Amino acid sequence: MLCESATSTLQPDKLITGPGIKQLEKSAAETLFVAIEPWVSNFGKVNLLLAGMVGSNLGWREAPYLSCPLDARRIGCALLVFEERGHRVAIVPGVSCVNALGQPDVMRGEETQILGWMSQNPESLGGTRLLCLPGTHTKWVQLADGELQCFTTSLTGELFSILRQHSVLIPQQDINRVPDFHADSFRQGVRVAIEHRSDLLHAVFSTRVRGLIKKDEFFDAGSYLSGLLIGFDVQSALNTYQDSNGIVELIGAGDLSGKFAMAIEQMGYRSKISDGNQSVFAGFAAIAAGVQH
Amino acid sequence: MLCESATSTLQPDKLITGPGIKQLEKSAAETLFVAIEPWVSNFGKVNLLLAGMVGSNLGWREAPYLSCPLDARRIGCALLVFEERGHRVAIVPGVSCVNALGQPDVMRGEETQILGWMSQNPESLGGTRLLCLPGTHTKWVQLADGELQCFTTSLTGELFSILRQHSVLIPQQDINRVPDFHADSFRQGVRVAIEHRSDLLHAVFSTRVRGLIKKDEFFDAGSYLSGLLIGFDVQSALNTYQDSNGIVELIGAGDLSGKFAMAIEQMGYRSKISDGNQSVFAGFAAIAAGVQH
Repeated sequence: MLCESATSTLQPDKLITGPGIKQLEKSAAETLFVAIEPWVSNFGKVNLLLAGMVGSNLGWREAPYLSCPLDARRIGCALLVFEERGHRVAIVPGVSCVNALGQPDVMRGEETQILGWMSQNPESLGGTRLLCLPGTHTKWVQLADGELQCFTTSLTGELFSILRQHSVLIPQQDINRVPDFHADSFRQGVRVAIEHRSDLLHAVFSTRVRGLIKKDEFFDAGSYLSGLLIGFDVQSALNTYQDSNGIVELIGAGDLSGKFAMAIEQMGYRSKISDGNQSVFAGFAAIAAGVQH
Repeated sequence: MLCESATSTLQPDKLITGPGIKQLEKSAAETLFVAIEPWVSNFGKVNLLLAGMVGSNLGWREAPYLSCPLDARRIGCALLVFEERGHRVAIVPGVSCVNALGQPDVMRGEETQILGWMSQNPESLGGTRLLCLPGTHTKWVQLADGELQCFTTSLTGELFSILRQHSVLIPQQDINRVPDFHADSFRQGVRVAIEHRSDLLHAVFSTRVRGLIKKDEFFDAGSYLSGLLIGFDVQSALNTYQDSNGIVELIGAGDLSGKFAMAIEQMGYRSKISDGNQSVFAGFAAIAAGVQH
């Protein structure tokens, strides 16, 4: 949940964090007002602009999805606006589509990030772009002439996390330590993905067996698993979105984006990394600038 | 862990169960002798024939792997034999191979099941057979003229279980109930696997979104997820082992094997189900009959 007073200057150093949707102990509204108490003390009445799961059916109020294809600049015209405790609240709608696999797909929050990225990269309004927003639920997004054409959600991050914690793939002693990153093991995972792209379910057990039989001189199961999953993810996406001009625009945290960049490079493509937080702030700023809410 | 007195008649109704390798609170040996106390009381000294994780480096004593290709009847010639508390103990070796993806792979316990199935299906000693042993770690096994040629382990069962328990894919209220089975939702999952066989990571999020947007008149997320995973698993295996004569020999529990049979049929292949417990007993019997241990 991200929010900011639209009347103050938007700056990353004003970031306030609070519990996510699955960690709420009170209602979304109460949790929000606890988190932003410093702003309310400072500014009095504030205009709140919210995006993400706060607008889902598990959040505060449901902001209906806009459908693709969608002019991203239209997102700011479809805010769900209401008043709470004397403050004006606006929730950014999510976006839905039928994805490249013919399946229904949704995003909430990423649309604001994408809009922000577009406002920071105005040349992106012409031609096609393939965006990748790595995360728990990685989004692969096709832009064409400033329109959000279609996107696909991949379970990469969540799958890595639960396989690491709950499967037999990772050695017991590694489960609770902070994961290191070993580039060689990661690249081996990517290589297996490249060679066997239709076989994730069959390839992933090799994470366990490689450690067991000590085939490799040095082997880090976590980095290998990360390489496998990111490798399969990138491989699928590049196969699906073939008209990406050979470059992937990564929007997200630097360390995770860096791993996607490695896999993309290993497959002979290029990428460019943009900071995910900066994109969110730019997205909120773009919406706030366009709306008297 | 399965064991039986080789000197008594082997019968399924003499099954005794105890904790698996991950649930051990005492040493493997102590746990075993607690479990088989009724046999020891009844028979005195017993000959113990053990297979499975008891022979792994996490088990009691490590029985080295035999390598593929392997005449399955040789398994009984490579038992690890020792004495404990005056009883004779023999542990069946596991089997290793380089699988169809070029990755190292291992099995422990399934070799005994396969040997048992072969002894019950002597016609299998000629020609090629594709066996599938559905389970936590599903094994796909290629037999040729009675030789174990190669096998591949798939994470199907474990992945289903941890995605069901720990991911956002399954609605909260369904996580702790006993899963029902809804054939229509299952078949939808298989269909998506058939149509998009290289995209498991991208397809699996549809489990969540289909429930969210209520695209389907009736939708059971668990059955759909099961169909997706089993569908991807079967699809990969049929693609890998194309010389399977169009028939898959399923060896395992009836309900799970039945789901694999549904997916196999949906892909235009045939299957035959053999009871997994009967195969284990037949395997122990075959080994015990061939060895004075």
